[in-house]
This record gives sequence, structure tokens and C-alpha cells, in this order.
Amino acid sequence: MLIVGENITVSKEDIASAVKERNAGPIIEMAKEQKQAGANYIDINIGPATKNGEELMQWLVESVQSGVDVNLALDTKNIDAIEAGLKVHKGAAMINSVTGDKDKLDILMPMAKKYNSKIVGIALTRDGVPPDVDSRLEIAINIVNSAMEHGVPVGDLYLDPLVLPVSVLQEQVSNCINALKAFKELKEVMGLDDEPKTIVGLSNVSQSSPGKLKSLLNRIYLVILMSHGLDSAILNPLDRELMSAVKTFDILTNKILYAHSYLD
Amino acid sequence: MLIVGENITVSKEDIASAVKERNAGPIIEMAKEQKQAGANYIDINIGPATKNGEELMQWLVESVQSGVDVNLALDTKNIDAIEAGLKVHKGAAMINSVTGDKDKLDILMPMAKKYNSKIVGIALTRDGVPPDVDSRLEIAINIVNSAMEHGVPVGDLYLDPLVLPVSVLQEQVSNCINALKAFKELKEVMGLDDEPKTIVGLSNVSQSSPGKLKSLLNRIYLVILMSHGLDSAILNPLDRELMSAVKTFDILTNKILYAHSYLD
Repeated sequence: MLIVGENITVSKEDIASAVKERNAGPIIEMAKEQKQAGANYIDINIGPATKNGEELMQWLVESVQSGVDVNLALDTKNIDAIEAGLKVHKGAAMINSVTGDKDKLDILMPMAKKYNSKIVGIALTRDGVPPDVDSRLEIAINIVNSAMEHGVPVGDLYLDPLVLPVSVLQEQVSNCINALKAFKELKEVMGLDDEPKTIVGLSNVSQSSPGKLKSLLNRIYLVILMSHGLDSAILNPLDRELMSAVKTFDILTNKILYAHSYLD
Repeated sequence: MLIVGENITVSKEDIASAVKERNAGPIIEMAKEQKQAGANYIDINIGPATKNGEELMQWLVESVQSGVDVNLALDTKNIDAIEAGLKVHKGAAMINSVTGDKDKLDILMPMAKKYNSKIVGIALTRDGVPPDVDSRLEIAINIVNSAMEHGVPVGDLYLDPLVLPVSVLQEQVSNCINALKAFKELKEVMGLDDEPKTIVGLSNVSQSSPGKLKSLLNRIYLVILMSHGLDSAILNPLDRELMSAVKTFDILTNKILYAHSYLD
């Protein structure tokens, strides 16, 4: 499992204020902690970033990579800010994310190709939340086709079946599981040479649930999704019980070798 | 999920001594607690029971059912003790278990038919632990065929893919997952009218692991198996975190309705 650490986001107060003051210290520290806890990528979420988005993303990419040897997922709806970040990023970045809207795909896929970056394609369009599994699948197929059209290797594409909050849209939470299963069949169904990867934004499932339930909902959902072959997740790697669940899954499915001390 | 409570077993000291003294109180109490915690069946495990097995099983069945309105799984290698228990059991009992050996099947399947009981058929024979997934599947097919031959409804048959300890036989733990997936295809593969159920003896997975890992291993393994359609498990319903995992699974897969208070 490729783990993308979610904790550098302007939706968190301490990060937002460090960003505002251009104080790199706490941000680098948060990147380090997440990497040590097992994150392979670090998400940099600057929100809509309508003002100074380009300068901000560049400052963040350069600051974090100056302090930690890690690749970043660039997370904003501001497309210019994404490209600004890609320009200064060392190594293979991840674009998080592109929706299934053709105009967006026609800008972001060529960008992924140009900068050799991975790209998250999410089963969502500006028409709103897809009502069922088939409509998610249809969007995913459009995204795969766009990747191929623009020369992005299918193996660099991370399809996101769209996690929604169980407290608000319970049925959509099981639709997401079934969409993941359908996405895992795409290589065969579409006759692709390579398998598109899969990814989720895990914490969405517990959004608006009481604090005491969040970690439990997150980790049980992750184990269900991993059971169906999930390749990657954007999550909080500092949640110890969540990371223990990931390790235990890997032990029980024979991916890493068991030792009595495997959690230590 | 049909939950079979595992806690009435002579391998536990307090139960063993209550059994020895024919002191029904603590045994009835343990049955009550398990039922309250969510057990649908209560396992009665008297071990090999080579001495007085028949009288002992009858005493246990009558004692427990006199105190608690619940069906029992009769668990011993002593076949006469099983039949003695079935004779006095009220309602549909469960025979736990029959191996894939023809001589055993030819005795226990007619017994299940005669007493209208459910029966667990385990992917194991006296030849030892099946080395791979295909050999487990072969045993399961023999068990299904034996059930049909003896007139036991396939829907009363619980196929057990055989859980082994991850600390000793790690590869076999993932074989068990894959065997479960194969068992879930049997209705289609064998052209059956009904689906054979599936069951596991969950705690085996954490046997010989350190105490602090047992509950974690059990509950992550259970979620993986439930993700692949497991119908039933023999487990400790007094493990709160385990039962929370089961409930959370049911919430996330839309089997029970979400409420912020679903764990209360």
C-alpha cells in the first residue's frame, strides 16, 4: 500500500497559521513525522488557493523537500498552482486530483505527462455525486481513456472511487466499495496493458461522525477496501491504530513476514 | 453474520472445574453473557470427552437450555456424545464439526439429517493440514456431495476453510482467505440450488501470538473474511473491540442503519 499522509492541510489551524506566516518549521516537522510513521507521499493541501496559489504551492514544495526527502501530492483546485508546484518539485509528484470533467482532464493529463507525475482521477464530475456504481465506473473509464489519449502511463493513474461520509450518505459508502471492485477489473474489461492503480481519501468516511467513532470507522473501512485490492490511501499516518491495522492486514495476507514484535 | 460464542469450553479452567463439579451456575451465566453480547449460537466444547462424554454433553445441553433460550453448537470428537446431545437439544442444534473423512461423514451427515441440525464441515482430513487452496476446495466439495447424498439441505451446511495460527503457519492464513473465496463460488461452480454457508473458528489465527496482539489479529482477520462474504464465525463475543468491528463492518456495508450511537 502506498500511503499518502494527509496532515499538511490548510483546513488544520496550526498548519494554516504556519502557512500564513510562511513559517516552514512546523510544516517540515509534520512532514517528517508522517514519513517516519510510514507515509510514502505527503499531501500538500492548500484548499481553493484563489490568491497567491502559485507562489504558495512553490514555497510549500520547496520548504518541505528542503527538510525531508519525500515526494509530494499537490492538492488544490487551482490548476495554475498545481503546475507551479510541479515545476519546482524534485522526483515524481502526484496530482491530487482531477475530476472526470473533459475540460479539466484536457489540462491536467498533459500536465501529468509533461512532469512525469502520478495523477489521481476521482469518480466525480461537476454534475455532482454519481448516484450509483455504474455511473462511477463510467467516469473512471473516461479518465482512463483520457490518460491514454494524452500519453499518461495507466500505471501512473490512481482511480479514486469517491469516499463519502457514512453519517450522511450511508448507501454511497457501500457503492464506493463496489466501485473499487469494478475498478480492479478495468485492466481486463478494457484490455489494458497495465493496471490503473486505486486510491481513496479515507477520512471522508468518518466526516461528521462523533470523534470517538472516527478512527474506528476509518480503520475498518480501510481493511474492507484493502481486502478488495486497494493500492493506496490518503490518510492520517499518525493514527497508530490505523497503521497497526494496515500492518496486521499485511501480516494476515502474507505480504510481510510475521514476528511477535511486528508492531514494535 | 451468525455468531457462535466460543467461551463454554473445557479448555478454560473455570469452565472445566464447573463441569467437573456439575455446577451449572457459572456455565449458564457464561451462556447468558454471550447471548447478551450478540451470540446467536453458543458452542459447547467438551474436548475429546472419552469418558462419560454422552452423559456430560446431555447435562450441559439441558443445563444451558434450562437457563437460556438459545441454540447450541455441540463440539467434541466423541460422536456418541454429539448424538446424545442432539437427542435432548431443543430447536436446531449445530454439529461442530465433521472433517472430510468419508467414514466420519457417513455417520455425522445422517445424524444432522435425523435431528434437523446444522453441521460444520471443515476443510481437514486425517491426512493432515491441506497444503494449498485447491486441496481445501477438494475437501469442501466432498463434504457438499456427502450432505446432498445424505439429504442434508446445503443451506444447513457451514463450510469451514480452516483457520491456522499466523505465528506458526503464516502462508496458511492467506490460503484460508482464498479458500473462503473459492467456497463462496461453490453454488455456481457445482450448480447447487442453495448456497452452502461458510464459518471459521476465528481465534485459531492468534493462537501462540502474544496476548497483546490476539484481539487485533482476530478482528482484522474477521473483517477481511467478512469482506469476502463470511456467513458465520465462532468467536469470543465478550471481546468488545471485536464486536464493535463486526457492527462497524455492517454499518459500512449498509447492512444496518447508521446512527451516531450505533455502538452504544
